[in-house]
Parts: sequence; C-alpha cells; structure tokens
Amino acid sequence: MNLLLLQPDQYQGSQAWIEDALRLRHVQEHLKLAVGDTLKIGLRDGQKGSARVASLEPTRLLLTEVTLDQPPPPKLPLTLILALPRPKVLRRLIKDSVTLGVEKLILLQSFRVEKSYWQSPFLQQIDDFIQLGLEQAGDTVWPQVELRKRFKPFVEDELPALCQGRLGLVAHPYAPAPMPVAVQQPVTLVIGCEGGLIPYEIELLAKHGCQPVHLGQRILRTETAMAAVAGRLFV
Amino acid sequence: MNLLLLQPDQYQGSQAWIEDALRLRHVQEHLKLAVGDTLKIGLRDGQKGSARVASLEPTRLLLTEVTLDQPPPPKLPLTLILALPRPKVLRRLIKDSVTLGVEKLILLQSFRVEKSYWQSPFLQQIDDFIQLGLEQAGDTVWPQVELRKRFKPFVEDELPALCQGRLGLVAHPYAPAPMPVAVQQPVTLVIGCEGGLIPYEIELLAKHGCQPVHLGQRILRTETAMAAVAGRLFV
Repeated sequence: MNLLLLQPDQYQGSQAWIEDALRLRHVQEHLKLAVGDTLKIGLRDGQKGSARVASLEPTRLLLTEVTLDQPPPPKLPLTLILALPRPKVLRRLIKDSVTLGVEKLILLQSFRVEKSYWQSPFLQQIDDFIQLGLEQAGDTVWPQVELRKRFKPFVEDELPALCQGRLGLVAHPYAPAPMPVAVQQPVTLVIGCEGGLIPYEIELLAKHGCQPVHLGQRILRTETAMAAVAGRLFV
Repeated sequence: MNLLLLQPDQYQGSQAWIEDALRLRHVQEHLKLAVGDTLKIGLRDGQKGSARVASLEPTRLLLTEVTLDQPPPPKLPLTLILALPRPKVLRRLIKDSVTLGVEKLILLQSFRVEKSYWQSPFLQQIDDFIQLGLEQAGDTVWPQVELRKRFKPFVEDELPALCQGRLGLVAHPYAPAPMPVAVQQPVTLVIGCEGGLIPYEIELLAKHGCQPVHLGQRILRTETAMAAVAGRLFV
C-alpha cells in the first residue's frame, strides 16, 4: 500500500478519518501507523498528498494536516477487454491491470469461460480489488469497469465504437503478426484467459476491429501477459 | 501446465514414466489424464514433443509413443539480478521470470532484504518453481540460478563481467532516464524488491555498469514490473 485512498465522505478541510473496522485493520496491517506518523494519502478521483496521524483507536483513525497538492499519475490510454477468468485469477488481474494504469476494463463472456464464474462472490468485490490496485500504484482515479455476459452482441454492437480512432488488438498465440511496441495511439486490447479464445471468436473480433497479434512462443499466465503487453505498448 | 517436463532418468527410447507420488498427484491435478490421452512433453534441457498415456496407476504414470521433435522456445537474452524478495513473492517471481524466458537469475542480498529470507525453506524449492515456470511456458531449458549473499563484493567483483558487451540497467523510480524499449542487445537488469534499493546501492550499481532507469510514475509490484520490463525490452 503506497498510498491510503480516502472516499469523499472520509475527508473535510484539513482532517480525514477512517471508521470502518475492516478497512482500518487492513490499513494497520500494511502501514503499521503510530500517532505523529506522516503518510501518503489520496482522495478518490482527486489529488494526492500527505497527512499526519492525529489519533489511532481500534475503531477510528483520525488524520490531520491533510494536504492534497499533487495530481495522480496519468492512466494508460488502454481499454482492456478480458474473457472472465476464474475467480482467483480475477482478483490479481484486476489489481494488476489497475496498478499498471488501465483506463477501462471490460469483463466478457467467451466460449471457454465457465458460466459459474459469473456467480462468483468475487464479482461483488471488484471495487475492493480496484482500491488495492490504486493504492499499490499511488493512483486515485477509479477506472471504468463493465461486465458483458454475451460475447456476440458485445463484439458486433459495441466493439466497433470501442475501437474507433484506436488501435484494436486481440492477443492470440497463433497470429502471424507480433504485438506492436511503443505505439503512438490509444489501444483497445482483448485478452482471452486460460484456454484462450476459440477460432470463431478470434474471427469475429478481427472482423469488428481487433487485429490478432501474438506474444511469442511462450505461453504466459494471463496476468504475466497483461503486464508484458502494457510494458511493451506504452512508453 | 502446458507441457510435462521429464528428467533424463524418466525417459528411455519411446517410453517415459513418472513414479514420484507427489509429482504424479500434481500432474494429475493439472492434466487430468486418462489412458490413451496424448499430451505435450519435454525432456529437461532437450527437445519437446508428445506422448500417449499407456497406463496410469496411483504410483506410476507410463507414457508411450514418446516423440521429441521440436526445439524449446528461445530464451530472452536477459540476466535478471533480483534483491531477494520475501519468500511468498520469491515463488511467483522465479516462476514468472522463468516463464518469460529469463536466461540467468541471480538472487542478491541488499540493504532492505531481511536477513531471515536467506533461511527460508523456499530457497530449497527453487528447482520446483523453475519447473512450474518452464511447464507454464512450454520450455525445457533450466535457467542458471545463483545466490549472492553479499552486495558489495558481488557488484564490485562480478557485475562488470556480467555487463560486458551487454546493456546494464537498474530499475529505479527516481532515475531521470526511462527504461528503454525494443533493445538490440542482451541485457543485465537489476530489480530491487519491496522497499527498493538505497541510494548507495544505486550509485554502486551505476558505477559498475548498470544505468538507473525508471518505469514511469506508478509503483508496481516486483512481478508486475519484471513482466512489464521483459515485454518492453525484447521484441
């Protein structure tokens, strides 16, 4: 946790506070604060800065000398469309993609996504995973997250607009072209998860704006692939 | 597991076998094999190919029709020097760096590495983590791994040779120059772990061949940074 993220209702003037016991425990585990300590803070969707611990009780952390004078780091101009992974992977993927600065994240049904994944309680915790990712990065700005439970209508009706004026790509191990490097425009990128996308899906994505590109001969975990692509596309 | 990796003593002619109960259980969990199934295999430090399950008992998996006719994917020309992370992170870092194709990995003491990490039982399991990484990637070739428990002698006496004819870099958040992209030469890269390297260490590394470079304003987990850098340096 490289920054403590505050919601607007946890902040007023030069003071800020956390009164949620669970959240407070999490903060203490990571930051091990004591009265008088200075820490880095950020206001949701706002500026970053610092504050000092005024008091620390089991049910309340009070911060004083709140200063919010720095902008958050810029996002990557990247819309990431992910075939919904299994719940355990979802947590890491959301956290890591938010840390890397993905601007918009769409979780999509695809043929090899188990329908049961859409019932996972993890989907109710997306905001928590986002918060973890932002606090790791030192960012404050919530990315957009959307869920799309039907592949074909999404690709046919929504994808073309999402690729408009952008570079549309889909990571596919058997594509002849390699993933580009250091691009000069915003990107809309589709990544399938374990098992990948089926040929019909790749074709439909290609037809509606996303060129298939490969990432080399090695088979990477989705999280690893996502980080490698983000590091490669944007300089 | 995208490939079942066999040791030389588990293979002869057209047959191969696994008789280690722990390993067998791991394989079954990931591949759920049945008699007659074909699977991808690889011989440690050798070729890749396929085999068919001849028999499957709780204590023995026998493979037949063993074919080893494809080369493993090339490694990245990357020597990665990591300040030893805490044990839990070590596992993922070794696995991911091996999956990405790191050729040589050196685990190094640094000021912010807790001495107790060198006593972790995880250090005895490095070969297991490497195997997991290779089986994820579809690779067979063991990377070199070395441990260096003293920072200064390593940097002064060994690092210059490791940077000879290569691009030497150290990831450092406060460096003025950015991490390069799509380089045309082998790279020796130092990454500090949680807490980073101290200024004295950065200076010593710079003096002995590793230029400090930053990765942008965001603070990434070491695994995420490592994957982003690998995807960025090599095309």
